[in-house]
Amino acid sequence: MNPNEFRQKVAKKEFTGPTAGYCKGYVQANMLVIPKQYAKSFEEFAKQNSKAIPVLEVVEDSYYTKVLADKANLLNELPSYNIFEDGKFVKSVNSIEDYYTDDLVFFLVGCSFTFETSLLEADIELRHVSQKKNVAMYDTNIKLNKVDIFDGEMVVSMRPIKKERVADSCIVTSHFPRMHGSPIHVGYPEMIGIKDITTPDYGDSIEIQDDEIPVFWPCGVTPENVLKKIKIPFAITHSPGHMFISDRKDNEFYE
Amino acid sequence: MNPNEFRQKVAKKEFTGPTAGYCKGYVQANMLVIPKQYAKSFEEFAKQNSKAIPVLEVVEDSYYTKVLADKANLLNELPSYNIFEDGKFVKSVNSIEDYYTDDLVFFLVGCSFTFETSLLEADIELRHVSQKKNVAMYDTNIKLNKVDIFDGEMVVSMRPIKKERVADSCIVTSHFPRMHGSPIHVGYPEMIGIKDITTPDYGDSIEIQDDEIPVFWPCGVTPENVLKKIKIPFAITHSPGHMFISDRKDNEFYE
Repeated sequence: MNPNEFRQKVAKKEFTGPTAGYCKGYVQANMLVIPKQYAKSFEEFAKQNSKAIPVLEVVEDSYYTKVLADKANLLNELPSYNIFEDGKFVKSVNSIEDYYTDDLVFFLVGCSFTFETSLLEADIELRHVSQKKNVAMYDTNIKLNKVDIFDGEMVVSMRPIKKERVADSCIVTSHFPRMHGSPIHVGYPEMIGIKDITTPDYGDSIEIQDDEIPVFWPCGVTPENVLKKIKIPFAITHSPGHMFISDRKDNEFYE
Repeated sequence: MNPNEFRQKVAKKEFTGPTAGYCKGYVQANMLVIPKQYAKSFEEFAKQNSKAIPVLEVVEDSYYTKVLADKANLLNELPSYNIFEDGKFVKSVNSIEDYYTDDLVFFLVGCSFTFETSLLEADIELRHVSQKKNVAMYDTNIKLNKVDIFDGEMVVSMRPIKKERVADSCIVTSHFPRMHGSPIHVGYPEMIGIKDITTPDYGDSIEIQDDEIPVFWPCGVTPENVLKKIKIPFAITHSPGHMFISDRKDNEFYE
């Protein structure tokens, strides 16, 4: 299935699950939708925290993409959306057509799923992919750089990596700086404020075997964590793991 | 001091210490000297274990270098040598002129000191350098690929790295594949058979601070460990940390 076909299935709600492992080789993106009055500050905040929030496209006065896909409809071509009011999660929905006003700005943000193809090609096993689970994600105590009202801590995704492949996993992912790039932390979850590695804050729990090291990458769910903290009146995000699949190929972002 | 001046000081025994931090920017090499009958097997063994034993130059029927320096005298231009008989360490000496016969073959092997300049240039602190100590080295349970009589486990060097720079340290060192390259292990010493990180098997004990991760690279002391195991009648190595400083620049080995 190519990305356009996949998105059409999603638009018809024939697919509503997490997107890891689908449309292999194509860029997947996180999404954040906020009222116009916050957009400029958020854009600067993203720039100041580009490892966690690498913006790939901004869509304003429209809900159709131009850069990541030719006219993808952002209101219904993601499998699941989270609605936030005053920083509180209200509900998950499969379409945001009912919520759209022309006051909303869409940010599409690079996602670590993109470099997973390269990890797999380097024979680095990804358990959440082979088990068709959502990647494990965690809140951390890693401080973001504050800009205006935007402030908070980084969310990370975790992949258990065989101990002799940890350096390779750093090197492979470093070639995708606009998709979070290299790990932000390796081993020792407690050093970044993760108390219980078996209980992720988002996504699924993934087993770490005896000969594996937990490796942590900055995660595009970070804005969701920020929204909770700063309590802006209204915002929408993709649901964790339920990404926008673009028409752009992963290797276009290899640097 | 340029490498030639440094080596002349060494030849006069005006310098007999570890070489870390000296002649910054120039390649330092490990050395192994064995009887001719073992040389072919060892060369193949090194090829099969090139992360631990990356051979840079072989000197035969002579004791003068050609590749790494123009006519450096390998009998007295290293600060310290270890003599082995039947796999047992006999003593350290500052010159091996009394031991030379034309039956001996010299192997010069890449050393992780070479990439330390790049780590420092990337603002990654190296405590053993700032404290003018020898790097900490450990025997491990990482099996080498056996060739003929040559067999054993890898020796590693350890550097404590600030947690947010671990991925960078993997990336920087990966550009020097002929100098051991990227780490063989990150964090959790016990996973590679190191029982007490505070007691290195070679070199000095180096403090690991709370916000640091122990990162392990393959080490050119590995052949010494192999010699102990296979018990060939006679061999000479550099003393750990007391390297051959060549005329070749580190950046010539950047790939």
